Amino acid sequence: MSEIEELMRKNAELENRLGMLEDLNAIRRIQFSYGYYIDYCHYEDVLNLFAEDAEVVFLSGVYKGHAGIRRLYCDWIQQLFNQGREGADDGFLFDHIQMQDVITVADDRQSAKGRFRGVLLGGSHDIREYRPQGISQQFMESGIYENDYVRVDGVWKIKRLDYVLQWQADYDTGWAHTDAHLQPAQVLYPEDPLGPDYFTGESRRTWPYRQDMPVHYAHPVIAKTIARLDG
Amino acid sequence: MSEIEELMRKNAELENRLGMLEDLNAIRRIQFSYGYYIDYCHYEDVLNLFAEDAEVVFLSGVYKGHAGIRRLYCDWIQQLFNQGREGADDGFLFDHIQMQDVITVADDRQSAKGRFRGVLLGGSHDIREYRPQGISQQFMESGIYENDYVRVDGVWKIKRLDYVLQWQADYDTGWAHTDAHLQPAQVLYPEDPLGPDYFTGESRRTWPYRQDMPVHYAHPVIAKTIARLDG
Amino acid sequence: MSEIEELMRKNAELENRLGMLEDLNAIRRIQFSYGYYIDYCHYEDVLNLFAEDAEVVFLSGVYKGHAGIRRLYCDWIQQLFNQGREGADDGFLFDHIQMQDVITVADDRQSAKGRFRGVLLGGSHDIREYRPQGISQQFMESGIYENDYVRVDGVWKIKRLDYVLQWQADYDTGWAHTDAHLQPAQVLYPEDPLGPDYFTGESRRTWPYRQDMPVHYAHPVIAKTIARLDG
Repeated sequence: MSEIEELMRKNAELENRLGMLEDLNAIRRIQFSYGYYIDYCHYEDVLNLFAEDAEVVFLSGVYKGHAGIRRLYCDWIQQLFNQGREGADDGFLFDHIQMQDVITVADDRQSAKGRFRGVLLGGSHDIREYRPQGISQQFMESGIYENDYVRVDGVWKIKRLDYVLQWQADYDTGWAHTDAHLQPAQVLYPEDPLGPDYFTGESRRTWPYRQDMPVHYAHPVIAKTIARLDG
Repeated sequence: MSEIEELMRKNAELENRLGMLEDLNAIRRIQFSYGYYIDYCHYEDVLNLFAEDAEVVFLSGVYKGHAGIRRLYCDWIQQLFNQGREGADDGFLFDHIQMQDVITVADDRQSAKGRFRGVLLGGSHDIREYRPQGISQQFMESGIYENDYVRVDGVWKIKRLDYVLQWQADYDTGWAHTDAHLQPAQVLYPEDPLGPDYFTGESRRTWPYRQDMPVHYAHPVIAKTIARLDG
Repeated sequence: MSEIEELMRKNAELENRLGMLEDLNAIRRIQFSYGYYIDYCHYEDVLNLFAEDAEVVFLSGVYKGHAGIRRLYCDWIQQLFNQGREGADDGFLFDHIQMQDVITVADDRQSAKGRFRGVLLGGSHDIREYRPQGISQQFMESGIYENDYVRVDGVWKIKRLDYVLQWQADYDTGWAHTDAHLQPAQVLYPEDPLGPDYFTGESRRTWPYRQDMPVHYAHPVIAKTIARLDG
């Protein structure tokens, strides 16, 4: 190989590695924006983070495509917590903290997986007249995301959002004395107008019952050490 | 263009893209350090994160330049919470958690914008004799930052820190039953020796009243999709 | 220098800078995985994040090598909180949130330092029969990590994990009324079968008493400005 060819090969390699880091940042931006949009009930913005054929796994049910995802976020959550309104509502808190990202981009840079932790702080202040039915006046929730992302025409989007509720807590009593008010889905859409399109097939009982949510990636030390020994 | 010229052009492009990722990391480091310095009342270190002509927006008032910023952090906050002392004080908690960064570096890499979420956990343990006046013995606070950064002689600094208080909570009663003790500034410096230099012009009422704090960036999926269609 | 040589030199420089960003990501992945593994008591996975000769500093004692680290995580923590079991246990919460990373890679890219904040939310739901002795039924804890990492045969590992407990809180009463149940180590292994291998020499009293935990890095603005003036 000539020196010029070698330089071209090296440039292509560097560009690919650099592109992977740019992908990581693009995906963090998408997921962190997901949280910021939900803070203020910007559910159209949430919806637009998803690919057309994306799916959301929530409470052991799958919401399919933009129609299904809209049913979950707009018809159910936005309606329940904010009467379908967009934007900040006085006395209403719905902070969606997103953090602890571990993102793995596929070698061809066309898909990626990402694990995140979410912590939710929510409630209705005493001044607020509207109160979501069946929800504590002030509550906390924690969950793990194991999501898939896809690059469509060069733009990263969420392909599959899998949110696994870890625990819920009525603020006043705490997680040790709260049973999750969210339970696995029982009835599909359209029989349940807010139900999922199909079941995952594995019904995950919610807090205080627990299921392990395995990480999507190989052990960051052992896997590489073994690969090195094998290689 | 010769092959050599093409390689040079490619190298310059890669270096620029790489530089943008380095900028992102430099800015995360600055903002995360901001939180770590405040944890232990290192307010000189906080001050030195700001450009000489920087501004801090706090409670609808603007603190201008190092003199104004010192007034806010040292004369007011450090004095109120820790009697003007630097360093860890037994029984005193003032954790400043910084997270969920979305950073946008300008094309010329001379300025940047960054959104962060801050969560504060604070209070005075029973053993502590000093108690800040008018503050709950244990409290939580959450806010959104939409900050500007600038590169001065090659070094990134905070140009404008805009902290928008989202809610405050007395730990014992929670956010549903707490009104923010911090209210929009009413009196300017020097009439109020701790007041801001000028008003933003938009008085943001604090919790339980809410204002939307728009993200500084275009929608990460839609904007790019549209740009692609247009281009 | 010929144009070809200049391009080769530039490529080497870019690869080194790119490698540093990849190192940052590798280290974030290790530390964030540390938290995810502990969430579900995957202590073998935790152990395998450490270099063979690694050390863990905990409560002013040092646990040395894999044998010592196993004693701390498996013999002590896993036994106390989950009766030595791995995996999710119904009614048991031990969330290990990891965040606010500031990572500094050495120029030779063979070692690195990282500061992180950890927040722990733990407890045993009413349905759980087992209760860890001497631990509140629901609790919070916060700490700062100042860790060392090392690259061994090209793979990043934890070299030294230094966790400094900042505060603990019984959920019901809060941090203002809780004394940390964890106190500095008093007896070494093997006299204490769960004790550290040696003392750090500096006994850090725990909450409500506080010690400053300095950041490992130079001030991100001032240090660079001074270096620039000097250079």
